[in-house]
Amino acid sequence: MRMRFNTEYIRQRILEAYKILYKVVYKTPLIYSYSLSKLSNGEIYLKLENLQRTGSFKVRGAYFKIWNEYLKGYNNVIAADPGNHGQGVAYSTYKLKISSTIVIPENAPSFRIKAIKNYGARIILHGENYEDAYEKALEIAREKDMPFIHPFEDPDLIAGHGTIGLELYEDLKNIDRVIVPIGGGGLISGISIALKNLKKDIKIIGVQPEGASALYKSFKKKRLMYIDKASSIADVLAIKRPGIENFKIINQLVDDIVTVSDDEIIKAMLLTLEKTKLVVEAAGTLGIAAILSQKIDISKGNTVIILSGGNIDITTMPELIRKSLLLEKDHIILEGLIPNKIDDMKKLFDIISSEDIDILSINYNKSKAFTHPGYINVILEIRASPDSINEIINRMQSLGFSLKIL
Amino acid sequence: MRMRFNTEYIRQRILEAYKILYKVVYKTPLIYSYSLSKLSNGEIYLKLENLQRTGSFKVRGAYFKIWNEYLKGYNNVIAADPGNHGQGVAYSTYKLKISSTIVIPENAPSFRIKAIKNYGARIILHGENYEDAYEKALEIAREKDMPFIHPFEDPDLIAGHGTIGLELYEDLKNIDRVIVPIGGGGLISGISIALKNLKKDIKIIGVQPEGASALYKSFKKKRLMYIDKASSIADVLAIKRPGIENFKIINQLVDDIVTVSDDEIIKAMLLTLEKTKLVVEAAGTLGIAAILSQKIDISKGNTVIILSGGNIDITTMPELIRKSLLLEKDHIILEGLIPNKIDDMKKLFDIISSEDIDILSINYNKSKAFTHPGYINVILEIRASPDSINEIINRMQSLGFSLKIL
Repeated sequence: MRMRFNTEYIRQRILEAYKILYKVVYKTPLIYSYSLSKLSNGEIYLKLENLQRTGSFKVRGAYFKIWNEYLKGYNNVIAADPGNHGQGVAYSTYKLKISSTIVIPENAPSFRIKAIKNYGARIILHGENYEDAYEKALEIAREKDMPFIHPFEDPDLIAGHGTIGLELYEDLKNIDRVIVPIGGGGLISGISIALKNLKKDIKIIGVQPEGASALYKSFKKKRLMYIDKASSIADVLAIKRPGIENFKIINQLVDDIVTVSDDEIIKAMLLTLEKTKLVVEAAGTLGIAAILSQKIDISKGNTVIILSGGNIDITTMPELIRKSLLLEKDHIILEGLIPNKIDDMKKLFDIISSEDIDILSINYNKSKAFTHPGYINVILEIRASPDSINEIINRMQSLGFSLKIL
Repeated sequence: MRMRFNTEYIRQRILEAYKILYKVVYKTPLIYSYSLSKLSNGEIYLKLENLQRTGSFKVRGAYFKIWNEYLKGYNNVIAADPGNHGQGVAYSTYKLKISSTIVIPENAPSFRIKAIKNYGARIILHGENYEDAYEKALEIAREKDMPFIHPFEDPDLIAGHGTIGLELYEDLKNIDRVIVPIGGGGLISGISIALKNLKKDIKIIGVQPEGASALYKSFKKKRLMYIDKASSIADVLAIKRPGIENFKIINQLVDDIVTVSDDEIIKAMLLTLEKTKLVVEAAGTLGIAAILSQKIDISKGNTVIILSGGNIDITTMPELIRKSLLLEKDHIILEGLIPNKIDDMKKLFDIISSEDIDILSINYNKSKAFTHPGYINVILEIRASPDSINEIINRMQSLGFSLKIL
């Protein structure tokens, strides 16, 4: 059966999805963010899909799609996805008490594999990349007559995601724009269909990572384009070959697409933790990254940002925090040699000890300075205002210390 | 004027606070947590005061108290608090366009001082501990006829906090118990007065840190007790001398108080990040720590846990994550000597490379092994199932490697 991607058909399906979804997913909160509003000079509301069951919006579409396959008599489905879609499928079949098989590339992060396994899905590790896993899954689906649950190009899946649009309109009638992260385009397709019908003049703006911007390029060129390489810290959005049907919907209903760099995403992740008190994965912070880097004009009216998911490998967070701190102007690492004399060390401490300065770490290492007898190697990690940092560097130079910013 | 701590009077004041508070604070979401419910075999709802303005519930009481002083004609208030109460006071006076002075002990964390400063409060650094700052603030208040905004023992402040009780009842009628972190007891006093009046059989259970449990001890002995030393990772709860009025309310209305250790709090913080996707400060996770360590019977009915705040120093988070991972059975650091031969290194990698194992870091250090020529010092940080970890240690021992768990 040819699947119907007609937007009016999908709109009807969104209403269907809205009737059955809340047995298994949350209606997530929409909150006003004072701190982001202040930082961006806008009126910013956040849709907390990071608090969604399975930690991401993906479960909405997966459940609605699988529920319909279940009604047709299927009790076994297959998908190819190492990320949030995989978790959504596994959780949905767990709730429906049927089976699922998820094909995953062999190098997928173990924290994601574990999350999928926890819902009782059968996992097949296959191939080196997503395309290999995808082909394998399609092959098994054909062989065993199992419905293949596509991660973005499917009318029912899009309809499930579209329920977010209805929830937004329920909570806030005067939305002026919605900012949505884009990978394969399933989420923005669903939200656009739901909202443009309820409120014609609402603007829908997509955000893609610079390193994985197939739909951005397609949107700008007005024809579907593939990319050879897709790579971003927002790994779940790294789609090389978006679908033609999603592209058509986006081309018709989306008002603009912008891109953000990995550095902009990392900064947004830290700021989201600090200011909004929410754990949001890289892909989920694209909207915040876009407004903080002023890629989207939000100066007038109410802006809703979709925080699409919160699945982070907690063990990578320390490094992420370190990276993001270093991207801020108020955080530096200095390394260099200072004379190995108590007096000079005291001077160093005089310089760096002040009310305004946070010393995060000090490393002395005598062994590294063996080529400079009488000197000692020092690494300082400091957080302070940019002015204080300049002051520190100037005072060090005037004392003849040769510490450099790493 | 003698302040009135009569519970009926405070209940009336809660209704007053409810009328004026929402110009400046949020009605925060109450969400059902599937993951915590599953982990604890209960029905767990979370009240997200970590998403509150200023990052904590404290602003509710501070604003209502200061608003009333403002109505009396005061345009200058003083408080002694380096934490969330200080932020609440500073934000409230900022919103009312009046002045505030906050007295803070000299060793207070700089991230907290900055947050208070950001709202335009005048800061006085004074003394070595809270008691010194408190005395200084009272002295200035008397000298300059400024209202002193007490951090926990004040009827209007308690009434402001009590609005949380009304919000809970609005969102969920059949609450069976509410779990509340306790420092000085202002929050639990307000919530108890609001809720016990609406629903007699609701249970209110407090949680204190083991290292700062003055009100726990008082509650058990049925008389107010001070402690000489108060110390906990939940630093904002370290109160040595709770107030007699809070104690009376708690003694009358609270059903039980339990304590949790710092290790239990650290574990709860990590789990909260990972499972609920929320940033909650140490004090805010006390309720979660209490249910995970089974200090409270939650097997029947609906349990609400108050996540009281989310103000964390982001730069300390990496160390916190490290500590909490080490408290889990699935995460270890191994250190020891292995022969400095390619073959033995290869064997080491054979042992630690398996699907089930996350290698978080490897440190080789030749210089540390100088007392054992021909050997090399290795530190391994590994995350795996407890079974796999035992297997790794056994295999290492059978090969003669002497790595020990740090």
